[in-house]
Amino acid sequence: MSYSISNKFKNLKPSAVREILKATNEPGMIAFAGGSPSTDAFPCDEVKILANEILSENPISALVYGVSEGYEPLRKTVKEWLKNRENVGTDDDTIVITAGGTQVMDITTRVLTTEGDTIICEEPSFIGSLNCFRSHGCNLVGVPIEKDGMNIDELQEVIKNNKNAKFIYTIPNFQNPGGTTMSFEKRKRLYQLAKENNLVILEDNPYGNLRVDGEDVPPIKSLDTDGIVVYAGSFSKILAPGIRVAYAVVPKKIAGAFVIGKQVSDVHTGVLNQMIVSRWFDEYDVDSHIEKIREIYKHKLNLMCDCLDKYCKDFISYIKPQGGLFIWAKLPDDVDMIEYVNKLINQKVAVVPGTAFMIDDSKPCHHIRLNFSTPSDDDIIKGVKIMGEIAKEYK
Amino acid sequence: MSYSISNKFKNLKPSAVREILKATNEPGMIAFAGGSPSTDAFPCDEVKILANEILSENPISALVYGVSEGYEPLRKTVKEWLKNRENVGTDDDTIVITAGGTQVMDITTRVLTTEGDTIICEEPSFIGSLNCFRSHGCNLVGVPIEKDGMNIDELQEVIKNNKNAKFIYTIPNFQNPGGTTMSFEKRKRLYQLAKENNLVILEDNPYGNLRVDGEDVPPIKSLDTDGIVVYAGSFSKILAPGIRVAYAVVPKKIAGAFVIGKQVSDVHTGVLNQMIVSRWFDEYDVDSHIEKIREIYKHKLNLMCDCLDKYCKDFISYIKPQGGLFIWAKLPDDVDMIEYVNKLINQKVAVVPGTAFMIDDSKPCHHIRLNFSTPSDDDIIKGVKIMGEIAKEYK
Repeated sequence: MSYSISNKFKNLKPSAVREILKATNEPGMIAFAGGSPSTDAFPCDEVKILANEILSENPISALVYGVSEGYEPLRKTVKEWLKNRENVGTDDDTIVITAGGTQVMDITTRVLTTEGDTIICEEPSFIGSLNCFRSHGCNLVGVPIEKDGMNIDELQEVIKNNKNAKFIYTIPNFQNPGGTTMSFEKRKRLYQLAKENNLVILEDNPYGNLRVDGEDVPPIKSLDTDGIVVYAGSFSKILAPGIRVAYAVVPKKIAGAFVIGKQVSDVHTGVLNQMIVSRWFDEYDVDSHIEKIREIYKHKLNLMCDCLDKYCKDFISYIKPQGGLFIWAKLPDDVDMIEYVNKLINQKVAVVPGTAFMIDDSKPCHHIRLNFSTPSDDDIIKGVKIMGEIAKEYK
Repeated sequence: MSYSISNKFKNLKPSAVREILKATNEPGMIAFAGGSPSTDAFPCDEVKILANEILSENPISALVYGVSEGYEPLRKTVKEWLKNRENVGTDDDTIVITAGGTQVMDITTRVLTTEGDTIICEEPSFIGSLNCFRSHGCNLVGVPIEKDGMNIDELQEVIKNNKNAKFIYTIPNFQNPGGTTMSFEKRKRLYQLAKENNLVILEDNPYGNLRVDGEDVPPIKSLDTDGIVVYAGSFSKILAPGIRVAYAVVPKKIAGAFVIGKQVSDVHTGVLNQMIVSRWFDEYDVDSHIEKIREIYKHKLNLMCDCLDKYCKDFISYIKPQGGLFIWAKLPDDVDMIEYVNKLINQKVAVVPGTAFMIDDSKPCHHIRLNFSTPSDDDIIKGVKIMGEIAKEYK
């Protein structure tokens, strides 16, 4: 006899899908499986200058303990920036700086749920968030997504049948992996449904700034007159992910518990990291930077779509997303997906099989997720060509 | 009706003690209440040089996503350093880099416990860890500490009476707040008891490198031939806390779950932060730095003890710790502690009332925790003088 791991973590044992994901990290792989922003978009020189300024002028303040809410000047900057840019946040909301976006999902789950509670998710959805929710012993119930976001009629049914649901998790812009953007009409219906059923909405918006086509849709949080939406945003995709700075906009009722949740998780986010982001806003034009990097993403998205149309026509279909990092590509129903993904890996092309993003990953799923931001242009062309060659085997 | 906060967080509502702690952050306060290392001990110039080198030579690698286990060169360095310095870690252990030491407590609790489980703690113990455990819905049971560490006979009783205990939490070196160091004899008995009862030991050692007197005692982890000890160490006290880099040495059986726990918490620790620490080891002599900063701590500890002996004799008694950051000072039993602490605050001297560190903070406690590392020498003298003046009111 010996001690044992908690049940909620026992259930998170590596699945077949995770084993495939491991293989995708091997050297020489063409990385369509990642979720990284484009390294061409990192403001490397700026970060170097900013770090040097901070550590020259005020090293102690960058190295002492910070407060759990986050570095005050950054909180203030984010508050104003979000208000101007997206009409997000009121005086009743609290900005909390977190160590990456996943921490917002983690703390929200800790604060709102108890083991055995239900979380309503889009299906498919981001595997990182799903695993975070699972690690708290929560049950996940999925609502299918359509080309304009969550199926709201289905959501209504799911709410009716899951009385112990605590919140609804959504990625309304350029959903991961689906690529879809929720219409404003659906956002309003979702908000209304949540309100009527005493549910919180966890709105995850890591990709919102990476729109390359179409018009911005107001965030659900911009409708939040009732204090029921926790909004998660991040600097991972517009500055760089390794710096681990993100933020939550938290309604009054949850704010106190959320800050304690941050405190018991890691006390506070790295101070130097937060000061770099804060000073980035002070000394550079962040909005212009975003405009600039959108061109990089637009180019890469178009390139991958052009290649798919050229090399994989009649085998792979997709709806072109208006932004983000991913294309959710559909294969014919008779393709054995595990076999197909392994064939790609053998040819050094890594993609993520769609089942990884399902609530129940034993369900059939004939999609793959393709990331166009990480690979170089040459790799995009080369990789999709290889996909085209393999497609021929299925004719 | 509306949504609600989970019970485990509802129970973490601010206590009277926490309200006092808030007041201690007011400007002009003499900071005996903090837990920060001395800013005189921060290697500021080195951090600036290292950050600049990293962001000049290899900015992309500092800004991309990292892996959940941590930056590989740092993991390797920490592994060797711990082995040489403390005989901690075997080939069966995994080093995981965390965002500060608290995250080790948090992930260990997630991985090993379920709501309602029991965690055995020293009493008093570090409020940050206690609140972390509480936030997971765990019950805490306290074992009193003596001048040579936990009362092991009492521990045996507590284990017998708490069959759903999952692990024992201990700070064996210069305990926070008690200042005590557990004897080697007690470490061996503790290990044996844990082993016999299928309990994990969570050994928290943030202060071990800050010994200013006496001989090092081998860590409990150095006895761990059975893979039952999770060991937490940190760079917060020897480099700087704002950088948020710490580490866990995790036995094989727990390692997989622990890494998933890290992943669902915040994906990975900031890469630049980890690279700074890694390169600090490569380019500077960390052991010499530790020797140097020990002198700072020795000086400050001696200064505070001398002042206490001079100004507060017959009112405040204490056992001088051999290292760490804190003096656990005892007041006469008839002193109303809340009144006393508020008197100090009114005179701009902030201390933490001992009840903050008790498992049940409604129990009487006639101690205060004094931190000697944060305040300047002048403030130490001035603050203890004020304490002496207030002591006179109790004669």
